[in-house]
Amino acid sequence: MKNKPSTHVLGLAHPPIPVVRIGLIGLGNRGLLTLERYMLIEHVEIKALCEIRPGNLAKGQALLTKDGHPAATGYTEENGWQQMCCNPDIDLIIICTDWLTHTPMATYAMKQGKHVAIEVPAAMTVAECWQLVDTAERTRRHCIMLENCCYDAFALTTLNMARQGLFGEIMHVEGAYIHDLRSMYFSDENQGGFHNHWNKAYCMEHTGNPYPTHGLGPVCQILNIHRGDRLNYLVSMSTHQAGMTEYARRTFGKESPEAQQAYLLGDMNTTLIHTVKGKTIQLQYCTVHPRPYSRSHTICGTQGFAQKYPVATISLEDAHSEGGLGTAAGEVASVTTEELLQRYQHPFTATIGKEGALKGAPNEMNYIMDYRLIYCLHHGLPLDMDVYDAAEWSCITELSEQSVLNGSRPVEIPDFTRGAWKTFPSVSRQEEKQITL
Amino acid sequence: MKNKPSTHVLGLAHPPIPVVRIGLIGLGNRGLLTLERYMLIEHVEIKALCEIRPGNLAKGQALLTKDGHPAATGYTEENGWQQMCCNPDIDLIIICTDWLTHTPMATYAMKQGKHVAIEVPAAMTVAECWQLVDTAERTRRHCIMLENCCYDAFALTTLNMARQGLFGEIMHVEGAYIHDLRSMYFSDENQGGFHNHWNKAYCMEHTGNPYPTHGLGPVCQILNIHRGDRLNYLVSMSTHQAGMTEYARRTFGKESPEAQQAYLLGDMNTTLIHTVKGKTIQLQYCTVHPRPYSRSHTICGTQGFAQKYPVATISLEDAHSEGGLGTAAGEVASVTTEELLQRYQHPFTATIGKEGALKGAPNEMNYIMDYRLIYCLHHGLPLDMDVYDAAEWSCITELSEQSVLNGSRPVEIPDFTRGAWKTFPSVSRQEEKQITL
Ligand SMILES: NC(=O)c1ccc[n+]([C@@H]2O[C@H](COP(=O)([O-])OP(=O)(O)OC[C@H]3O[C@@H](n4cnc5c(N)ncnc54)[C@H](O)[C@@H]3O)[C@@H](O)[C@H]2O)c1
Ligand SMILES: NC(=O)c1ccc[n+]([C@@H]2O[C@H](COP(=O)([O-])OP(=O)(O)OC[C@H]3O[C@@H](n4cnc5c(N)ncnc54)[C@H](O)[C@@H]3O)[C@@H](O)[C@H]2O)c1
Repeated sequence: MKNKPSTHVLGLAHPPIPVVRIGLIGLGNRGLLTLERYMLIEHVEIKALCEIRPGNLAKGQALLTKDGHPAATGYTEENGWQQMCCNPDIDLIIICTDWLTHTPMATYAMKQGKHVAIEVPAAMTVAECWQLVDTAERTRRHCIMLENCCYDAFALTTLNMARQGLFGEIMHVEGAYIHDLRSMYFSDENQGGFHNHWNKAYCMEHTGNPYPTHGLGPVCQILNIHRGDRLNYLVSMSTHQAGMTEYARRTFGKESPEAQQAYLLGDMNTTLIHTVKGKTIQLQYCTVHPRPYSRSHTICGTQGFAQKYPVATISLEDAHSEGGLGTAAGEVASVTTEELLQRYQHPFTATIGKEGALKGAPNEMNYIMDYRLIYCLHHGLPLDMDVYDAAEWSCITELSEQSVLNGSRPVEIPDFTRGAWKTFPSVSRQEEKQITL
Repeated sequence: MKNKPSTHVLGLAHPPIPVVRIGLIGLGNRGLLTLERYMLIEHVEIKALCEIRPGNLAKGQALLTKDGHPAATGYTEENGWQQMCCNPDIDLIIICTDWLTHTPMATYAMKQGKHVAIEVPAAMTVAECWQLVDTAERTRRHCIMLENCCYDAFALTTLNMARQGLFGEIMHVEGAYIHDLRSMYFSDENQGGFHNHWNKAYCMEHTGNPYPTHGLGPVCQILNIHRGDRLNYLVSMSTHQAGMTEYARRTFGKESPEAQQAYLLGDMNTTLIHTVKGKTIQLQYCTVHPRPYSRSHTICGTQGFAQKYPVATISLEDAHSEGGLGTAAGEVASVTTEELLQRYQHPFTATIGKEGALKGAPNEMNYIMDYRLIYCLHHGLPLDMDVYDAAEWSCITELSEQSVLNGSRPVEIPDFTRGAWKTFPSVSRQEEKQITL
């Protein structure tokens, strides 16, 4: 299937949708928050909710009615999501279930004519990535992965600066997902843990980097991936596993099933990606050590540097400071990070983010993401992220595992655009300014 | 030669040397500072100076006499260093010349019965690393690489903490050499540049990570490398080159020879190393971007985390905070980095470093390194770093280049101890406390 010629969906747009009618699958930790978030967005109707845990479905309905929304059609059977996808009153299916169910649900939904928005990662294998791409191309549906970190204020500011050339040529970038999740892995679902411990189960069976997209998405946008450059190959290296077992031993005792269980996932994974244009991306993953949270977000260019964690830092060569024209190369501008963050704030943050804050949205980047998705559907515009982004960022899950299992051997990354990356123009976010708000 | 059985020099010690008589080769930027540093140390006599630039030799002699030391024997011919190595009044040869001359000088000196201390890196190829090891084993001479970063206060504190098990099992570490050297590369030697542009010449001909030891040395000590674990294989990835050329274009003009010149060295190199015990090391190198200086020095363990750059951060699980015994795993101690740095300050810093500061030594870590080297020779003790450290840390230069030139393919790292790493006990720096000062 993957070699069959097909017409790409780069820049795909559809006629404006006056009110975007949403069906939401999965009302766990993320899904319930997602529901609350879309209740804040204009031009939206929550039409249907699907969740196999009846209690969680009830929670979702209660959120709707408490806020004065009509109750949604509820689906609670094992295959309720398929019934929901056949509901003709839905435009967009949002998928907030566990990782392994994302792609089957999304492809099915697209085949029923729905646009789909999928929680991260969109797919867990290269085959699934191709299924998303092939299905989106065949059905001409929008298929977006909800990579909220692309709307982080610092990420957007650095994207804005990158588009203006302020970093010079960007040579190397870094992303990460470093987040101590040990207590989450071992909590039962009624104590806030994952349904049926699906995430711990994944740690038992897989290694590599299972969750690459938060770190990778924002930096791929900055590198214009599949808009003039392309991920080419990667190498990946993991430590052995110790963090889960040690935590379990200390929490549940040496003889507990949790401590006796084998976990395949190495504590810390580092993946290096090479692009066709000779840029490098470093990606890290660690969820089982007591470390400060970090997505890194590091941008290294010939004329500037930015890094979000542990403290936001931007430094530019003097040539780019206020009025500093043609001063010697090699001198670092004296302008502070705070001034630069202010000066180059992305219009999304300045307008949509501000609006979200006024509405009391708990998390600015999620609000901007949701707003933009509905805004683009409502105005008939291409979405900020497409199915190729979803595939490129998600495929690292399987490819990093392959490399780790093969002693860090290089692994090729598929060209999901089948060559179209060479000619598709890079997005100019500047132009989007005019059409925002 | 490398397969010939031989007796290792792990833990090598010699009879005490009452006054360590030094011959110094290379009085460039580093060598002149080195000379000044050793003038501060007790039990030292600067016997001879060797430098092919007569002006720099004169500068060295002037430093000595200005400070009331007797003039040293001067060698200024091209092969002056060989004559110096045959001088019977010298115990220790210190080598501060350019990279490519380190190993030939060091092996020759050892063959003349001298102990040698070599600036970083000690060797530029795997063959040279083996030459150092073989020669040190055959001659039973001390061969130390002057990796001053091992004596950095933060590095020593985290080493101290690692030895006490405060990080739990240490799984992943990071080191780096990120230092904007663009103006240095392009300066003439009479303006503070390198002699004959030797460093720029290296950038024209090589890629990979040419300068791995500042980042690698301190974290290898923390991982007990060749004292129970061993560097096993690496993968390495570089960006293409842009920083040197862009800097030259902006500084000298587009048509200048500097801008027209091809440089092979990629702007940014990342190398991942796997140890036999399943730990990982990340090493970065970038000297041509406007970035804040960093050696990273990151330690990730199952119970704690430390990172020096950009801001010193240490976080430990609550079990290790003052009085916190047996509290739940997963809780981060509230104790601040400052308190931890104070509490676990290494005795070297507390005693030798303090003494250096009182004497007005410009750089604490150099002072501690010099002090320790002379102290151990004077007391007949094994040195803090041995020829295997020098070889292991330096061999990354060639091996990273090999991996980069082969599309990041994994490359095996030799076992320079020929198996002795399995049984040689890890150094307990705690025990050194008693014999310091
Ligand atoms: N973008 C972010 O910042 C972010 C944050 C948290 C989670 N997530 C992602 O959200 C997704 C869900 O994570 P979570 O923490 O909410 O997990 P969860 O286990 O709390 O929720 C998953 C829910 O899906 C339901 N479900 C499973 N199969 C179903 C089916 N066939 N039909 C209907 N419902 C079904 C489960 O009952 C559960 O309530 C994951 O992909 C995760 O990676 C993203
Ligand atoms: N550890 C550190 O922090 C640190 C800092 C700076 C430099 N270094 C290292 O120190 C070394 C020297 O660097 P540098 O910056 O001083 O370079 P440099 O070019 O300033 O000095 C090298 C000197 O060696 C002399 N020399 C060359 N060949 C000689 C020979 N055959 N006989 C006698 N003298 C000879 C040159 O004339 C020159 O004066 C390098 O290995 C460098 O990596 C280490």
